Amino acid sequence: MAWRLTGLVLSVLAVWMIAAAPALAQEAPDIQVVLDNLWVFIAGILVFLMQAGFGLVEAGLTRAKNVSNIMAKNLADMSVGALAFFVVGFGFAYGSDGGSFIGTDLFFLSGATGDLVNDQIYTDFFFQVVFAATAVTIASGAMAERTKFSGYLLFSVAMTALIYPVVVHWFWQGDGWISDLAIGDAKFGDFAGSTIVHSAGGWAALMGAYFLGPRIGKYDAQGRPRAILGHNIAFAVIGVFILWFGWFGFNPGSELAADGVVMRAGVTTLLSGAAGGVAAGAVIWIRNKKMDVAMAGNGVLAGLVGITAGTATMSPGAALITGLISGIIVVYSVLFFDRRGIDDPVGAISVHGVCGVWGTLAVGLFAQYADGFVATDDAGLLYGGGIDQLLVQAIGVIGVFAWVTATTGILFWSLKRANLLRVSAEEEMGGLDIFEHGAPGYSLELVN
Amino acid sequence: MAWRLTGLVLSVLAVWMIAAAPALAQEAPDIQVVLDNLWVFIAGILVFLMQAGFGLVEAGLTRAKNVSNIMAKNLADMSVGALAFFVVGFGFAYGSDGGSFIGTDLFFLSGATGDLVNDQIYTDFFFQVVFAATAVTIASGAMAERTKFSGYLLFSVAMTALIYPVVVHWFWQGDGWISDLAIGDAKFGDFAGSTIVHSAGGWAALMGAYFLGPRIGKYDAQGRPRAILGHNIAFAVIGVFILWFGWFGFNPGSELAADGVVMRAGVTTLLSGAAGGVAAGAVIWIRNKKMDVAMAGNGVLAGLVGITAGTATMSPGAALITGLISGIIVVYSVLFFDRRGIDDPVGAISVHGVCGVWGTLAVGLFAQYADGFVATDDAGLLYGGGIDQLLVQAIGVIGVFAWVTATTGILFWSLKRANLLRVSAEEEMGGLDIFEHGAPGYSLELVN
Amino acid sequence: MAWRLTGLVLSVLAVWMIAAAPALAQEAPDIQVVLDNLWVFIAGILVFLMQAGFGLVEAGLTRAKNVSNIMAKNLADMSVGALAFFVVGFGFAYGSDGGSFIGTDLFFLSGATGDLVNDQIYTDFFFQVVFAATAVTIASGAMAERTKFSGYLLFSVAMTALIYPVVVHWFWQGDGWISDLAIGDAKFGDFAGSTIVHSAGGWAALMGAYFLGPRIGKYDAQGRPRAILGHNIAFAVIGVFILWFGWFGFNPGSELAADGVVMRAGVTTLLSGAAGGVAAGAVIWIRNKKMDVAMAGNGVLAGLVGITAGTATMSPGAALITGLISGIIVVYSVLFFDRRGIDDPVGAISVHGVCGVWGTLAVGLFAQYADGFVATDDAGLLYGGGIDQLLVQAIGVIGVFAWVTATTGILFWSLKRANLLRVSAEEEMGGLDIFEHGAPGYSLELVN
Repeated sequence: MAWRLTGLVLSVLAVWMIAAAPALAQEAPDIQVVLDNLWVFIAGILVFLMQAGFGLVEAGLTRAKNVSNIMAKNLADMSVGALAFFVVGFGFAYGSDGGSFIGTDLFFLSGATGDLVNDQIYTDFFFQVVFAATAVTIASGAMAERTKFSGYLLFSVAMTALIYPVVVHWFWQGDGWISDLAIGDAKFGDFAGSTIVHSAGGWAALMGAYFLGPRIGKYDAQGRPRAILGHNIAFAVIGVFILWFGWFGFNPGSELAADGVVMRAGVTTLLSGAAGGVAAGAVIWIRNKKMDVAMAGNGVLAGLVGITAGTATMSPGAALITGLISGIIVVYSVLFFDRRGIDDPVGAISVHGVCGVWGTLAVGLFAQYADGFVATDDAGLLYGGGIDQLLVQAIGVIGVFAWVTATTGILFWSLKRANLLRVSAEEEMGGLDIFEHGAPGYSLELVN
Repeated sequence: MAWRLTGLVLSVLAVWMIAAAPALAQEAPDIQVVLDNLWVFIAGILVFLMQAGFGLVEAGLTRAKNVSNIMAKNLADMSVGALAFFVVGFGFAYGSDGGSFIGTDLFFLSGATGDLVNDQIYTDFFFQVVFAATAVTIASGAMAERTKFSGYLLFSVAMTALIYPVVVHWFWQGDGWISDLAIGDAKFGDFAGSTIVHSAGGWAALMGAYFLGPRIGKYDAQGRPRAILGHNIAFAVIGVFILWFGWFGFNPGSELAADGVVMRAGVTTLLSGAAGGVAAGAVIWIRNKKMDVAMAGNGVLAGLVGITAGTATMSPGAALITGLISGIIVVYSVLFFDRRGIDDPVGAISVHGVCGVWGTLAVGLFAQYADGFVATDDAGLLYGGGIDQLLVQAIGVIGVFAWVTATTGILFWSLKRANLLRVSAEEEMGGLDIFEHGAPGYSLELVN
Repeated sequence: MAWRLTGLVLSVLAVWMIAAAPALAQEAPDIQVVLDNLWVFIAGILVFLMQAGFGLVEAGLTRAKNVSNIMAKNLADMSVGALAFFVVGFGFAYGSDGGSFIGTDLFFLSGATGDLVNDQIYTDFFFQVVFAATAVTIASGAMAERTKFSGYLLFSVAMTALIYPVVVHWFWQGDGWISDLAIGDAKFGDFAGSTIVHSAGGWAALMGAYFLGPRIGKYDAQGRPRAILGHNIAFAVIGVFILWFGWFGFNPGSELAADGVVMRAGVTTLLSGAAGGVAAGAVIWIRNKKMDVAMAGNGVLAGLVGITAGTATMSPGAALITGLISGIIVVYSVLFFDRRGIDDPVGAISVHGVCGVWGTLAVGLFAQYADGFVATDDAGLLYGGGIDQLLVQAIGVIGVFAWVTATTGILFWSLKRANLLRVSAEEEMGGLDIFEHGAPGYSLELVN
């Protein structure tokens, strides 16, 4: 009897154990959820600082008389942009209603459930809003030194509220037409946004520079481009380092989880940026007989943009090759636009637009980890299905190009018609700092 | 028999399982402890960098002839401040002996047990010492361009060793009079330090600026304020971005754990800073017809100070409103002190003191997650008990104001009597860099 | 029968439980592995930003006409250096074949297994490559304002591909002759690289400055040193803050795991840096009657280099003493080299070489946690075995000194013979920015 009772008690306890087991097992995943969220949040903080990096690069590569204006635009991209993305942008991007073109809920973060352990909406929003600010600020550099601050603000709102969120909805929301796109086995791959973020910003930059026209003095009477030197190469290079630093959040953070893909993405991000700097530095050194530092810095950024699409799906060696090619492309792309009358003071169109396209196509050439983990084809480099994959990558690229050039083209055309796009010649010559912001950005005399 | 034996063996194993279960369950909490500590440590590292942000903002908004002096004071706040906080400050703040006014143990981190897994004293110290450096450096900007370096050092030691630690003891140590304070159900709420850190620094700034008097040339013969332009708006705005970046450690790190509150605090911190920048920029643009960049940057900081108290207890929407109001307040507060002869070159009193008060009161108006997790009142916005809550918030604000103005007032009065507070007119005109530090901060000629 | 059946079923379930238990227990360690990797990766990101810190310190303490060149060298150290370390450096450092002198596998990260959960090679590589960039950039400052960019690139490749990796192999790989070294119980202790990284960089700096010779104008006709002022103290101090920030990755990250040692290392890193700044500032203030800000900043760096070896094995109090002594040493060391014709524009030899030695020896004096966790001797401060410990520390220091001075000596001698080391007098006078890089680094006029 005692045995039976013991057996009964033990059996009951065993049943409790069995019932409790899932709870114990669940304990670990809960920590994994916290860890995933925490890493993505930290990654978002790193991406946030990219705004300072953009500010330094843009200010460094333009003239001292416009430094406050550059900084004002970067402050605005993060401030106005964050509010616009909170009010409607996040909903347009990640809302589940509204079909494959645009989302129509989650405005004002209304989807938050209050379950702070399992509800990832705050993490998602934080990580996405800093991406939105990045996308818009890319255009800031190309439009530098001649854009009305009020006109720029309207563009900044349009970009963060609608234009960029729609692109995000097409792919990262999961039910958009780009994410649904398939040719054979091949599906569009853009891990951290070579196309979705960088080329979107790059095409806005292209439209902005086109509708603004070149700065006074940029072209001589024969239409030949002249160099307008940046005022502070120290700012530009420190900006490049801060952007590179932030990119370790941008790319590895796009895994949206804390796992081994994160560190491999860190390595590919480092190597591609390094290779881009080496390649652009070497090309310009051979071409001009001088190692132009600004171009080397842009080469790093080109390598970083280039690897953004394939950061998690390429091997380190493929990342290095992607970066080298990015660094070569950016030099010739900058020269190309310069000669065709598109005055892009910082090279944003080439770095983010052109190299964004290259990086997206490179996924079709070099990617070998289909889902970030498993190699698809041990023997070769091709991702998904060869030519199908290149085709699907190209369709995504073209779709984003069409949308962004159309919407920003209409916007900039309208701003120009309303005389809200470009400052007067007097203001441009005297500097935007004094005319738009009421004071010079620098007062460097040592006695006053 | 065999069955019985089997039953016995299995029963014993089941007992082992039952005994082992808590151990298995405990495995997870240990990792949670590590993760909590690691996050708070990382957050502290972010807060550390705020010292660079303060240095850039303060240097950018003052004159080139005093740039080394600004940097020297920031280096000192972190260096001298860290040693002072290690020797006595941390003990005064977190010591358990000594009652509700001041702690009297833990000097020299003497309470460390050597159990590195469960002893959080190193994490606590690290997170707190960077807060202490923040509190003192707030005053640095308000006292810029005219304070003796030796006098400033004495203030820096007093602030990090005693004045700030006492405020911390009152609330964050857990047994202080402010943390014990209750009116009905309402208890004082200041999640990350709008009052405990920022207003404490702000009132020290007020006393410093008052006892120093205005800079030579700040007021004309009729006593009307004149603008003294900052020398580097790029520095100022990059400083704002670095401070904002650090604030993602300051506010979400104050959860002192890795959980879902962290990310929501990140979102409220982002939105309030953004709203502060938008509001201050808009107000000054309308008022002056120019979008003053320095004021927009101060608006961001005002929004960040404003949300610091309620970062974990407010919804994103309430954070946005708190930031908007902060941005409006800071413009008029800066003008108010300027007109009353209080010469605060960077606006520290308004940003940290006045907006610190506003943010603390805003908790009484807008907070809805009583303990950071659970909404107290689904229908309304009120936290705790309405007017009781506002009252208890006000008492905490007034207590900190009284202590800091009294102690720093006595200190600055004494320093003035001892001729240790203000440099000579000759030194002020020639610049503190040469007279206090032996060399100009800049030598920007390109050939030498 | 029913009972028997029930017993059987329950017994089977209990057996399943028992079998499942290790799996449940294993769940937690897996998360620990992820957390370890994630922390080391984040720490590596912080170390990455040190490159920007070095750039700002070096630029700030040298002349405006060479600012682009400084930045170009820092970009190159990270870009060329990362590729060189990827191709061969990491293999020479961490390859397991090749014996106690050098590794001979893992080239091109060929040892990666594809198991992203348990394979730490990406994390290891990332953390190590940013260390390699740090080691080489230390010499950049000592060689500033007169080195040919092409010659510097060759040095940068040699350092990151071979010279530094061999030093790492000797100790951190685990089978090198320094890690095998033992005198009695005493084994060489250098937790994060006072000797392995900083003194290695410092001795390269010494050889570079020696073979280059002093800058034109550094010594008068009687051979007495003259001060050549840095051009931007704001850059220098912000650089110090960014380096300090990065050091919280450098030192605590060297634990290579997420545990309680991390936070204690953070505290010792903070206190030693602070103490170094206070000591150097006080010494120079007393000596020169002015508180030289650049020297105080170098004092912080000296304290950080000093604690790097013992960051995990010293108490906070011992760290403070180590930092104070570092700060005193650095002042007199700078004066010593200055007087002996070694022109080191930023003090890199003293900060990284001399204080790296001091920090390594300090482990023999003050360390008390033998493996980072457990105090070896509750009563005293001695680590391992007293004089034996000091001896083993000295042997490691001398070994690294011999290898680095020999290899970099041969390299710089060869570069000098090939006329690849120093620019022409004309180029030096006109500035490296224009002659090497084609444009001035600054164009600060406000109207152009």
